[in-house]
Amino acid sequence: MNPNKGIKIIRGGVTAPEGFLAAGINCGLRKNRPDLGLIYSKTPCLAAGAFTKNRVKAAPVLFSMKNIKNPVHAIVVNSRVANACTGRRGAEDTLRTARIASRLLGTGVRNILIASTGVIGKFLDMKKISSGLKLLAGKLSRRGNEGVAQAMLTTDTVKKETAIELMVKGRKVRIGGIAKGSGMIGPDMATLLAFITTDVLIDKTLMKKVFAEGVKRSFNAITIDGDMSTNDTALMLANGRAGNSLLGPGDAKDLALFSRALHYVLDDLARKLVMDGEGATRFVRISVSGCAREDEARAIAFKIARSPLVKTAFYGSDANWGRILASAGSAGVAFDPERAVIRFGPTTLYKNGEPAAFSESLLKKYLSQKEIAVSLDLGQGKGSFTVLTTDLTEDYIRINAHYRS
Amino acid sequence: MNPNKGIKIIRGGVTAPEGFLAAGINCGLRKNRPDLGLIYSKTPCLAAGAFTKNRVKAAPVLFSMKNIKNPVHAIVVNSRVANACTGRRGAEDTLRTARIASRLLGTGVRNILIASTGVIGKFLDMKKISSGLKLLAGKLSRRGNEGVAQAMLTTDTVKKETAIELMVKGRKVRIGGIAKGSGMIGPDMATLLAFITTDVLIDKTLMKKVFAEGVKRSFNAITIDGDMSTNDTALMLANGRAGNSLLGPGDAKDLALFSRALHYVLDDLARKLVMDGEGATRFVRISVSGCAREDEARAIAFKIARSPLVKTAFYGSDANWGRILASAGSAGVAFDPERAVIRFGPTTLYKNGEPAAFSESLLKKYLSQKEIAVSLDLGQGKGSFTVLTTDLTEDYIRINAHYRS
Repeated sequence: MNPNKGIKIIRGGVTAPEGFLAAGINCGLRKNRPDLGLIYSKTPCLAAGAFTKNRVKAAPVLFSMKNIKNPVHAIVVNSRVANACTGRRGAEDTLRTARIASRLLGTGVRNILIASTGVIGKFLDMKKISSGLKLLAGKLSRRGNEGVAQAMLTTDTVKKETAIELMVKGRKVRIGGIAKGSGMIGPDMATLLAFITTDVLIDKTLMKKVFAEGVKRSFNAITIDGDMSTNDTALMLANGRAGNSLLGPGDAKDLALFSRALHYVLDDLARKLVMDGEGATRFVRISVSGCAREDEARAIAFKIARSPLVKTAFYGSDANWGRILASAGSAGVAFDPERAVIRFGPTTLYKNGEPAAFSESLLKKYLSQKEIAVSLDLGQGKGSFTVLTTDLTEDYIRINAHYRS
Repeated sequence: MNPNKGIKIIRGGVTAPEGFLAAGINCGLRKNRPDLGLIYSKTPCLAAGAFTKNRVKAAPVLFSMKNIKNPVHAIVVNSRVANACTGRRGAEDTLRTARIASRLLGTGVRNILIASTGVIGKFLDMKKISSGLKLLAGKLSRRGNEGVAQAMLTTDTVKKETAIELMVKGRKVRIGGIAKGSGMIGPDMATLLAFITTDVLIDKTLMKKVFAEGVKRSFNAITIDGDMSTNDTALMLANGRAGNSLLGPGDAKDLALFSRALHYVLDDLARKLVMDGEGATRFVRISVSGCAREDEARAIAFKIARSPLVKTAFYGSDANWGRILASAGSAGVAFDPERAVIRFGPTTLYKNGEPAAFSESLLKKYLSQKEIAVSLDLGQGKGSFTVLTTDLTEDYIRINAHYRS
């Protein structure tokens, strides 16, 4: 079956679903680039969230973790300052931001979610945030999707947006999404912000479940440098304005399509994040199969995807399968190297405990492409997991050596 | 107390202790650089070893793990080819190497240890090894320490040697050591080879214990890129020719000095490895304290030391303490960020959950030095651990992108 059957890709982002408005502006946190954004739904939304598992959580993360259970009207996002490790003052600044937004939007503080990204340990300039929010509230529109997509970027080189349309219980439903993140991308969504909007009417428990599953296989299956941020936040808002009758646990077929559609949006954004990885020249799909359990496959796939030696070899178009196997061997998972098979694209490089004969020049050609697929089959079970990652280049170093300045 | 009291640093390496000979030559595995080395003791040695914990172990590792319990006469080492992932033929090549060496040295195959380092998945050229060993056996001498130290290098830019002298039970005893390793240095000694020789007469159980403790705090407390190799091997040989009466469990004072002296040698070699880290411009000591347990401190210290974002910030002389805290928070250890204190050298950067006031220009000056000390105190216990690491630079990428070619 075509995995995208029933899913129509449309233009736009978070304002594609009915009833969502957005805006993004420059409020002066950064020079000449949008740095403050707002997503707003005219009617209250069911919300679901996935947050960083870092022990050190930024003020806006702690704030949004509390409010996620409430009906949500808006998400405020800023770049440049992460408002992390900022103590009591940081928490107060987040609260004040929500207060200002709630007054402007005529809703409660408890109906606002907040996300910040940027430098850790710097305070927000509340004067700029305050006047910026006033400006933003007046600019909210259906065409504001690009503005907010731009306002949340840090070292990203391009905005990431997706929107799709599908039929749920006989009604047209839309899902839109935006994301940011370029470095500090590890599993558990290191410095990743993603906001998903939809106008579907859906059962809350169901929505949380479908969203959590989708995040696991998308944002939590990518790594650029293995670092986990203090600010990672993925949010989903559903305002139920599509007019469908409630999508509930009994609607197996419609639910399957909606779930597939949501995963499409999440996957597409995750893929766009990796493609824009800091300094990256290669987009690498690492599939590990034949493990006793899925979590073992995941551990090995991430170990490989995070190895600087593996990543620099991709950069050099070097068919260095030895580093793949060495990296897999260090993941703490028991396996028999004699049964492992390594393939780069269609070519087998290692089998039966020995290097396989292959054409170095053909491999070099394959590895010079922008997109590369590597697979490792351990031949001992059915557990599998795929991770998306990038190569590691001099540009990554240059981007990150002087980030604060 | 001066930690080096009673320890006299002398010239030389593995041939400094009585009765050890060595040699290193070029046998043709690499161009114009020594690639095959031999360490030999006229009388049999007690041996202790620490080996890679990688699931994928190179043929020479599996071979030496078996022979380590026997009386040992010699260590054969080669660079350029790791003889890892080479299946049955690789195992046979290692065995053949030992056979040739044993015949030339008039000892048994079981009395030989072998270590290889270099590219994974390539076979040894046994013709070159065979004629090289003949040449080597004829060149063994007290002045061969430099030769073997050179022959084991891969991307290292300098040889690493240490030798010391101390008094044990009234007799002069010597310990010598050499090591190699520059990239693929993770904990558990990724691509690290180290050979320690001593002429002390010591109880075997005791020697194994003292060596294991020393390796834990030296070679297993350093990381350059976090990768773990298939070939890591640290070996210690003691031939007992110093003439001291047996150093046993009852000799508390002499044992303490010997242990301290051995640790000095291991530390010094570990430090030299890090200082020669691939592309490194900074030598960073990361001390984590105030943890409930030592293993928690170790987990956090390594998480920080392995973070590409932390390492690139060091490269840029950027006082980015936020990345340190974010990295610590992602180590899976529970702690309260409000109680954490971060210092770079003598300067406090973060305390009481907030950034501390500090002079950016003074910090920049401090961070521009070659040696940097970073400390993180979690304020919740007595567990501590210190890890040595390097920064991450463009040169690391250049060195590793095209390693096989």
